[in-house]
Amino acid sequence: SGGSGGTMASESEAQRALQYEQTLMYGRYTQDLGTFAKDEAARLRLQEGDTPQPRRPSELLEYTQGRCGPCRVCALQCQRFLISKVGEDWVFLILLGLVMALVSWAMDFAIATCLQAQKWMYGGLDTNVLLQYMAWVTYPTVLITFSAGFTQILAPQAVGSGIPEMKTILRGVVLKEYLTLKTFVAKVIGLTCALGSGMPLGKEGPFVHIASMCAALLSRFLSLFGGFYENEARNIEMLAAACAVGVGCCFAAPIGGVLFSIEVTSTFFAVRNYWRGFFAATFSAFIFRVLAVWNKDEETITALFKTRFRLDFPFDLQELPAFAVIGIASGFGGALFVYLNRKIVQFMRRQKAINRFLMKKRLLFPALVTLIISTLTFPPGFGQFMAGQLTQKDTLVTLFDNQTWAKQGINDEFEYLGILEAWLHPRSNVFVTLVVFILMKFWMSALATTIPVPCGAFMPVFVIGAAFGRLVGESMAAWFPDGIHTDSNIYRIVPGGYAVVGAAALSGAVTHTVSTAVIVFELTGQISHILPVMIAVILANAVAQSLQPSLYDSIIRIKKLPYLPELGWGHHEKYNVRVEDIMVRDIRYVTLNCKYRDLQQVLHSTKMKNLPLVESAESMILLGSIERAQVGALLSAQLSPQRRLLTLRQKVLPEDGHQLSDSSIRFQISTETSSGTPARAALRKPLKPALKRVSSSPADSPPAGSPDHTGIALKSLFCANAATEPTEAQGTAYHKAKRVRISIVEEMILGDKMTPTEILEWEEQQLDQLVDFSSAKIDPAPFQLVEHTSLHKTHTIFSLLGLDHAFVTSIGRLVGMVSLKELRKAIEGSLTGKGVKVRPPLASFRDSTASTSEADTTALRQLWDRHQHHHMPREAGP
Amino acid sequence: SGGSGGTMASESEAQRALQYEQTLMYGRYTQDLGTFAKDEAARLRLQEGDTPQPRRPSELLEYTQGRCGPCRVCALQCQRFLISKVGEDWVFLILLGLVMALVSWAMDFAIATCLQAQKWMYGGLDTNVLLQYMAWVTYPTVLITFSAGFTQILAPQAVGSGIPEMKTILRGVVLKEYLTLKTFVAKVIGLTCALGSGMPLGKEGPFVHIASMCAALLSRFLSLFGGFYENEARNIEMLAAACAVGVGCCFAAPIGGVLFSIEVTSTFFAVRNYWRGFFAATFSAFIFRVLAVWNKDEETITALFKTRFRLDFPFDLQELPAFAVIGIASGFGGALFVYLNRKIVQFMRRQKAINRFLMKKRLLFPALVTLIISTLTFPPGFGQFMAGQLTQKDTLVTLFDNQTWAKQGINDEFEYLGILEAWLHPRSNVFVTLVVFILMKFWMSALATTIPVPCGAFMPVFVIGAAFGRLVGESMAAWFPDGIHTDSNIYRIVPGGYAVVGAAALSGAVTHTVSTAVIVFELTGQISHILPVMIAVILANAVAQSLQPSLYDSIIRIKKLPYLPELGWGHHEKYNVRVEDIMVRDIRYVTLNCKYRDLQQVLHSTKMKNLPLVESAESMILLGSIERAQVGALLSAQLSPQRRLLTLRQKVLPEDGHQLSDSSIRFQISTETSSGTPARAALRKPLKPALKRVSSSPADSPPAGSPDHTGIALKSLFCANAATEPTEAQGTAYHKAKRVRISIVEEMILGDKMTPTEILEWEEQQLDQLVDFSSAKIDPAPFQLVEHTSLHKTHTIFSLLGLDHAFVTSIGRLVGMVSLKELRKAIEGSLTGKGVKVRPPLASFRDSTASTSEADTTALRQLWDRHQHHHMPREAGP
Repeated sequence: SGGSGGTMASESEAQRALQYEQTLMYGRYTQDLGTFAKDEAARLRLQEGDTPQPRRPSELLEYTQGRCGPCRVCALQCQRFLISKVGEDWVFLILLGLVMALVSWAMDFAIATCLQAQKWMYGGLDTNVLLQYMAWVTYPTVLITFSAGFTQILAPQAVGSGIPEMKTILRGVVLKEYLTLKTFVAKVIGLTCALGSGMPLGKEGPFVHIASMCAALLSRFLSLFGGFYENEARNIEMLAAACAVGVGCCFAAPIGGVLFSIEVTSTFFAVRNYWRGFFAATFSAFIFRVLAVWNKDEETITALFKTRFRLDFPFDLQELPAFAVIGIASGFGGALFVYLNRKIVQFMRRQKAINRFLMKKRLLFPALVTLIISTLTFPPGFGQFMAGQLTQKDTLVTLFDNQTWAKQGINDEFEYLGILEAWLHPRSNVFVTLVVFILMKFWMSALATTIPVPCGAFMPVFVIGAAFGRLVGESMAAWFPDGIHTDSNIYRIVPGGYAVVGAAALSGAVTHTVSTAVIVFELTGQISHILPVMIAVILANAVAQSLQPSLYDSIIRIKKLPYLPELGWGHHEKYNVRVEDIMVRDIRYVTLNCKYRDLQQVLHSTKMKNLPLVESAESMILLGSIERAQVGALLSAQLSPQRRLLTLRQKVLPEDGHQLSDSSIRFQISTETSSGTPARAALRKPLKPALKRVSSSPADSPPAGSPDHTGIALKSLFCANAATEPTEAQGTAYHKAKRVRISIVEEMILGDKMTPTEILEWEEQQLDQLVDFSSAKIDPAPFQLVEHTSLHKTHTIFSLLGLDHAFVTSIGRLVGMVSLKELRKAIEGSLTGKGVKVRPPLASFRDSTASTSEADTTALRQLWDRHQHHHMPREAGP
Repeated sequence: SGGSGGTMASESEAQRALQYEQTLMYGRYTQDLGTFAKDEAARLRLQEGDTPQPRRPSELLEYTQGRCGPCRVCALQCQRFLISKVGEDWVFLILLGLVMALVSWAMDFAIATCLQAQKWMYGGLDTNVLLQYMAWVTYPTVLITFSAGFTQILAPQAVGSGIPEMKTILRGVVLKEYLTLKTFVAKVIGLTCALGSGMPLGKEGPFVHIASMCAALLSRFLSLFGGFYENEARNIEMLAAACAVGVGCCFAAPIGGVLFSIEVTSTFFAVRNYWRGFFAATFSAFIFRVLAVWNKDEETITALFKTRFRLDFPFDLQELPAFAVIGIASGFGGALFVYLNRKIVQFMRRQKAINRFLMKKRLLFPALVTLIISTLTFPPGFGQFMAGQLTQKDTLVTLFDNQTWAKQGINDEFEYLGILEAWLHPRSNVFVTLVVFILMKFWMSALATTIPVPCGAFMPVFVIGAAFGRLVGESMAAWFPDGIHTDSNIYRIVPGGYAVVGAAALSGAVTHTVSTAVIVFELTGQISHILPVMIAVILANAVAQSLQPSLYDSIIRIKKLPYLPELGWGHHEKYNVRVEDIMVRDIRYVTLNCKYRDLQQVLHSTKMKNLPLVESAESMILLGSIERAQVGALLSAQLSPQRRLLTLRQKVLPEDGHQLSDSSIRFQISTETSSGTPARAALRKPLKPALKRVSSSPADSPPAGSPDHTGIALKSLFCANAATEPTEAQGTAYHKAKRVRISIVEEMILGDKMTPTEILEWEEQQLDQLVDFSSAKIDPAPFQLVEHTSLHKTHTIFSLLGLDHAFVTSIGRLVGMVSLKELRKAIEGSLTGKGVKVRPPLASFRDSTASTSEADTTALRQLWDRHQHHHMPREAGP
């Protein structure tokens, strides 16, 4: 598996490789698509040509004969109109927005009910602290355990945030089972339970995933009405819009949702998809908020966490350094959070003893974590020092509060009313509570997000950030009781504004996004703090990005999904490393005039998923690329028992057999130095007994590409690989071949007249034939780069086109290959200062002098000379 | 000129073609770059290797010997550190932000002063209406005329908005003189005068251009300190950031600025460039607003047009239909504005008589338009019905006003104070004033933006939108005096909110952007109307996009800049048209074993800018592409007098001449059917007398690629073209050749021993030689598509990579070519329902059966057979 498969080293990676399949934007130009499209088009055109006109009147007649005929005709027409409209993008987007708003609202309602129930239980048992503790701890433990178990059983793909997976999917990789109904159900129910438990978990990431699943299911449902939804390019566009809807209806933040989803899931964004996201997210947010009005929660549509800061003088210029401090500290905090989260996961994986134990009892880890966290937040216990009784939503509402908590003067004594009371401890002060809250929640959130339930980390981090901002704000308010501004009016410091800034900065640092600023404005309904928020978010991003990858990239790396690291900022080396420095030069290839034995050898010697097809070994002119599976299919078709039986029959009837074999068997003395046949020793390995009987369908046509019947010679192929385990996607083909082989052995015993020795001989003979590529799918335009392409440009092209490999050519000749793996190594090497050798920056590209490189000239000359050589004899001949 | 040049049909287009040069992201892989990079790298590595260590101590010594040695050492180190930091992206962005904020603020100040001066003059002359009128009309006329004249003389490129040009430049096309200091000065001064005149003109578009010029100049300036700024990819990234800065510091709207600039200038946006825009725009907006505080205009940093709508109940759910109506009406209005603007330009161009007159007196048109507009807005005249005395800024402030203008009740009598007075007319009411204002301003703005001065249309449109929104709002307020909500509290309707919605909707409709919503929030400092604004903007966009292109795209089309139309929404055909339906099949190519005569013929027969290089006419395997200019250079090098003289000398000294000529002159009998030599009749045309003597430098090496010396045979080339005029970029090469030819004639007379007949013979002989490509620059990996690529995918790839042509190949064989022109035709054809034949939608791509298309198989077979054919004799030979 050369492309993305080549990046897989360990076994776990290899197993994961079986789960996905690369569907490149670029690499999809296989011939069969075009052919299929042609056939399909012809078929549909035919249909169009004769069916609709004659059919319609008859249908209408049928209805008009009834009593309420006109009505029915009208209804039919309406129905047809609707069906034709179903194909429109906006219908899909409205439906998606509507469904997601309903899901979001229903989930919010269920979560609120769950939390209410816990509060009610806790409140009702206030006579006995032990009972209270039991209720407080048991309730979330049960919910989390249920959530973990339910997800595990129904769809393990639903675990976690989902944003890393969506990023991978939008890159063009198909992750199996990630967008199915089962996963949808598991994610919705699992998430509701997980959030209902009151653990510090978020719903943003999962909502992105849920919206994507919703879009995938909806498009599958709507495709019943028409074929529009089966276009892959369109589906990817819709998935991108769905991600925006996910964030949008989660926070009622359409603009922030669109921007956040772009920043988090894309590397290059098509501006023409922009409106899709805005349209769907706005509609979704609108419905989501209208539902709240309809439910009498709100009087009209307002922000989710509405703030009421003063408008006329939101902040003083001299407060800006404090905001900058929040930004920088949040940057470090965000990086620390990502680091901590990763270390916890890695620790859990490394500890074999713990791991084995937890693997056996999968639900123990979630239960244990929940137990610890809920014990610590128990309000009469340690929870009293960290506002433990507040739910996440209440915490945010209090943190964004308009008043100043720290005591400012005698006449200004501030009464803690309602839920604000939680922050006040009689024997301590607000600062202590806030510091304890921040410290405890920090590790709790990092730990809780590693639980295998559907959950995100955005909201917990957002809350921690708000608390940190509040802490700074309260400190400032205590330091400058009458504000900094010393003119006529007294403008007190607004600690709530600091909380808003802190929330945006920390969540921006963890996710490496700037759009948290916009989310914050939409969440609070106020934009007056725009400059402090922007400054803090940018500083936080600058610090966090230079220390750690984003949380989502970190998860992608942990999960070993295929990815391309971002180019850091300000690294000039990326312009000076070139493809020739990083490419793999020694690659295997298939030539147009090769023999089946060569194919076999190539399959032996490389794991590349796509093999380059070159004109000949001397010219090395790249003609296209051929999938590994296709090569396997060619080989197995050549050695199939059918063909053997045909040969057998030809031997019996030699007169017409001669005609048949003449066209297919050709001998050619190759100029290539044959690199020795593979060790035949493997053939002597004992065959394993047949475990399963495969129903072999001899009617299958070989061009279908599935390795249905293979010969003994293929044995060497997988026997040689047996030691290293067929670890990649190709492995399945081998396994199939293995099973099939057994059926062949049976067949041999039953009907085949040839002895194994004869078969071997026959196969050896077959392997010496020239390959007939006419039945193979060849990608006629694989992506090509040249040696001098800079790393920066290569990175851009790979992320633009979602490539996972590219061939490096020089005037048509294949000289090497670059895959994601090499690129990743190069980038990470150049970022850490080692690895690839770095060239000093180039002067202008434009004003370069026109001297051809020596090597290229020589190569061109060779090609040219070869041509002369070729033509001369031909001219002399006739 | 095949690529973008091929899209040029008329003469004016062709002339424009001379002004730009395509610098494709993809097409830049010419060999020389790599070579140059290598040499440069080697040079710099050498420098690095030996210079710094020994040099530094000596330099330090020099300083330490002085009295304040340590200080100097320190200063030197600081300086070095600074210089090394100058290369960092953030330093550049901060500098850019700072400079732009200063420019923006200074311009605002100058504009305000200009407007103040007009008001003062107008106010001071209130005794005499005629004098007042004279002052009111003369002042703007003088300013606009000066602006137009100044721009015309200094840099005509500064005229207009600049966003269309920036969009083209960011697509990879180099527009000459668009980013120079001269244009910068012309634009800044011209814009200040134009806006100072009080005409309905905007500053947003020009600011995008100014910021881009600023970035280009800054990077050129900073490149004095290091080579970092000479990388083109980086400069493009910085230009994208600069566009964001332009909008950001114009409106103090960093987020909206970034989003608007992305929507307006990009088709695909690299998310990794996102932070650059945010960083620079935030810094710029911050400095811009800090300057206002420093100037005591403001107490602290607030929004530019701060509104004070109530927060608790911004709008009622039942008002949403009214907002939707604003959106839809704005959509129609926006489309009408674009249409009107284009029609005015086209009318002015078509009217030959007017045109000729105006061309002679270039300043008459601006003066005339200004005269008409300022006459109509004269406050004591018609201006009293349309708030003529208000400046654009005052108009906006009043329109966003918190109060309701329409009389609501007796106890609620509203006093028109200050500038609000302008909207009240004693003999009419607010509604009439608003309607007149909207109608008059609409055509005035559409007309004024066609004046050849630096100006944008965003602000005028924004103001009209606000007025329209206000009109709807006031109507609603009159209709529901106590608000719609009938619960306990009375929430009156806020017409100011409607004005905000209208402004966002109309400007969004004209520019086809959604981000005007964000700009509006940042401008007003309130986000409470987010849902109405979003709904209206999306509806306005939906309507406008289906009726007209955006204003910027309309200008691009008028100016005939190279562009790629956007794929509309919901057009399913784009998935079903394929490259083979639109590609040009009959293309000229260069073969590896062709003769110089063939090159000459190819140059004759096609205008393509890039010629494909194929292996041979039979195989048609694409090896690379070669620029037209390179082919010309090859040809002229072959026929150069130097070579002729060399041949002459060889004749004189045949013993060593034999050795020399042997390597370069080879004969080969081609298998191609030679398609006849071009008509030699052209040769007999009389030569024009020498006009200029060109200093010919015989020392120039031929590989340098410039057509320095050419022979007589080239004559036929440009003589044949003389009738049709050498209309494209290549034309310059011909002209050069023409001039050079004359110098050759002189040389002939002076020193050449050959008669013209001999020369012709010699040249004929030379033309029969095989081409030696080793000195030509060949792009070894031109972009390739396959026939089955869908139009949608092709469009994506073209806009992603900024291509202007791509070769269509099938398993290495060249089968056709697609350029921007074909793509444009196909898209516009499919959008208007004619042109390209449309296939019905395909079913799934995924589940397609694996049958190879007939044609491909045949082709592959041919290639294969040919190979057998080739190899056989070789094997038999030795």
